[in-house]
Amino acid sequence: MADVSEEQAIVSNKQVIFKDYISRFPEETDMFITCNENMKLKVAAGSKDIIVKNLYLSCDPFIRVLMSSQGSELFSPYTPGTVMTGFGVAKVMESGHPEFRQGDFVWGMVGWEEYSVLKPTDGLFKIHHTDVPLSYYTGILGMPGLTAYAGFYDVCKPKKGEYVFVSAASGAVGQLVGQFAKLMGCYVVGSAGTQEKVELLKNKIGFDDAFNYKEEPDLNAALKRYFPKGIDIYFENVGGRMLDAVLVNMRVRGRIAACGMISQYNRTQHEGIHNLMSIVSKGIRMEGFPVFDYYPKYSDFLDFILPCIRQGKVKYVEDIAQGLDKAPAALVGPFHGRNVGKQVVLVAPH
Amino acid sequence: MADVSEEQAIVSNKQVIFKDYISRFPEETDMFITCNENMKLKVAAGSKDIIVKNLYLSCDPFIRVLMSSQGSELFSPYTPGTVMTGFGVAKVMESGHPEFRQGDFVWGMVGWEEYSVLKPTDGLFKIHHTDVPLSYYTGILGMPGLTAYAGFYDVCKPKKGEYVFVSAASGAVGQLVGQFAKLMGCYVVGSAGTQEKVELLKNKIGFDDAFNYKEEPDLNAALKRYFPKGIDIYFENVGGRMLDAVLVNMRVRGRIAACGMISQYNRTQHEGIHNLMSIVSKGIRMEGFPVFDYYPKYSDFLDFILPCIRQGKVKYVEDIAQGLDKAPAALVGPFHGRNVGKQVVLVAPH
Repeated sequence: MADVSEEQAIVSNKQVIFKDYISRFPEETDMFITCNENMKLKVAAGSKDIIVKNLYLSCDPFIRVLMSSQGSELFSPYTPGTVMTGFGVAKVMESGHPEFRQGDFVWGMVGWEEYSVLKPTDGLFKIHHTDVPLSYYTGILGMPGLTAYAGFYDVCKPKKGEYVFVSAASGAVGQLVGQFAKLMGCYVVGSAGTQEKVELLKNKIGFDDAFNYKEEPDLNAALKRYFPKGIDIYFENVGGRMLDAVLVNMRVRGRIAACGMISQYNRTQHEGIHNLMSIVSKGIRMEGFPVFDYYPKYSDFLDFILPCIRQGKVKYVEDIAQGLDKAPAALVGPFHGRNVGKQVVLVAPH
Repeated sequence: MADVSEEQAIVSNKQVIFKDYISRFPEETDMFITCNENMKLKVAAGSKDIIVKNLYLSCDPFIRVLMSSQGSELFSPYTPGTVMTGFGVAKVMESGHPEFRQGDFVWGMVGWEEYSVLKPTDGLFKIHHTDVPLSYYTGILGMPGLTAYAGFYDVCKPKKGEYVFVSAASGAVGQLVGQFAKLMGCYVVGSAGTQEKVELLKNKIGFDDAFNYKEEPDLNAALKRYFPKGIDIYFENVGGRMLDAVLVNMRVRGRIAACGMISQYNRTQHEGIHNLMSIVSKGIRMEGFPVFDYYPKYSDFLDFILPCIRQGKVKYVEDIAQGLDKAPAALVGPFHGRNVGKQVVLVAPH
């Protein structure tokens, strides 16, 4: 992209607007597309803002939390009628901040729009390695990657030979946890919701085994079949009846990384979990882990993961929707299991 | 007690026998008393067994687990028709083991009977400090004490000024957790099931506040009243709807020591817990902790707790039933909240 001259400094900025709070599955009509025809690509004198052109947007399950009026302890909800936000990869067009320069690539929280004005004070990372796909900074090299790394290594404290189960295993985080488990010498089984995903887990991503939970009327029996000796580590992405079945099948001193519970986000009353007594009787640790707590370890994580990617030791499957117009559908997809791999929206080629 | 001469070496041994497996509240009639008239107080030549006279028996909630046909991962169930077992304090009458001598006091797993033959290979501790009540070795100086110590300090990792909630707070473990929390400079509130216990917690044991959960139709509202800023640490002894209400009121990065869930032991289907999403959204750690894992730290624990007892910094409330005949009723009592303080059975004075 050429420098933006004074004459070009006004652009139209297509945006995805959040309509109103929901307490059910998100639908495409909970968002609408609008266009701001008078976006000035100029940082005011003295401001430390930066203006970026968004390249990729990340469709993460936590966005559903921002669409509830109550939000959560760690996330304020969206304001109806304003542009949605989320993780993304962007290119700096204009910068008033000394640490960012025109042409830099960055990842962090951006607007769901073509151009965003950002205050790079919190959690905006400069991208130093561009020999790998830039979209990876929404996934394996971004928040989901750091989540998998922190959740598996730090929370689960895996040991060689342990039995690992991952739900939503072909998703943005799950597919990495499975590969980290193999690198550690664990036995790892994943669950997913289509035969295509099961094949992907077994044949491409390298899980030892995988199953389609929708074809298992008795999840407890399924887990007993795949883990006759029980589960040491459960990487929890779904919640609900899968969690209940896992608790019965956990081994003594097992660990559960509570990463997400996507099966529950769209219910007003969450399903009851009946087998928590296992936590007492087996001495299990179940732990949530705000990924922001691990931001200081991001560069350690990159030192670990970049060589794995370059040497082909770790793969990453993405599902890339083309264009900002497709963003609402792309966001809704993962709640119905429509995506295969990390769901990304390509806003603009770089 | 004088040495046992050859003529005295046959005694009658009253015993509490377990009748049959249950899946409901334990009742007195699940046990019966019998008498073995021909117990020989003599260790066979070459055997490393010891023969003890039991002084105190401990009525612990985990005994209910042994009364279920399935037991648990860490405990084998009782065999119907045999003598019950549990923690107790005893005096050595005869010893074939080089580390134990006649007249030694010990605590560990014994039979619910007047005399027991023990193999002191696992978890039998010699009592070196007899300036404190011997019954304390079933409670503050025994398994419940080590449980409170490990659960609060090691699992909860408390910090000064944090907000601590303890359920079943006047029980064997809870009353200690509350006092440890005060020693640490925390704010601590306890729940119990009678006004008498609430007064005890506030006026004798030193909790900052306490409430009777049976008088609170809305536990969520009660917790909001006692913890307007939320709960950092929950020491979980009861499970069920109290746990569900606590999860809503936990603070970000809170910790839950899952010590017991006494409200659930007598149900075939445990109550559903609906608010586990809090674990993900607030980054909570919930952890069970087999007390046996902490046995190597028992002498550290004694070094900490004995001076506290001697200096009156930590108190301990016991509810002592008189005589082995009262043992079945004493065991059943805590499941109905009848005991005030740690439930013990005095079998014989020392």
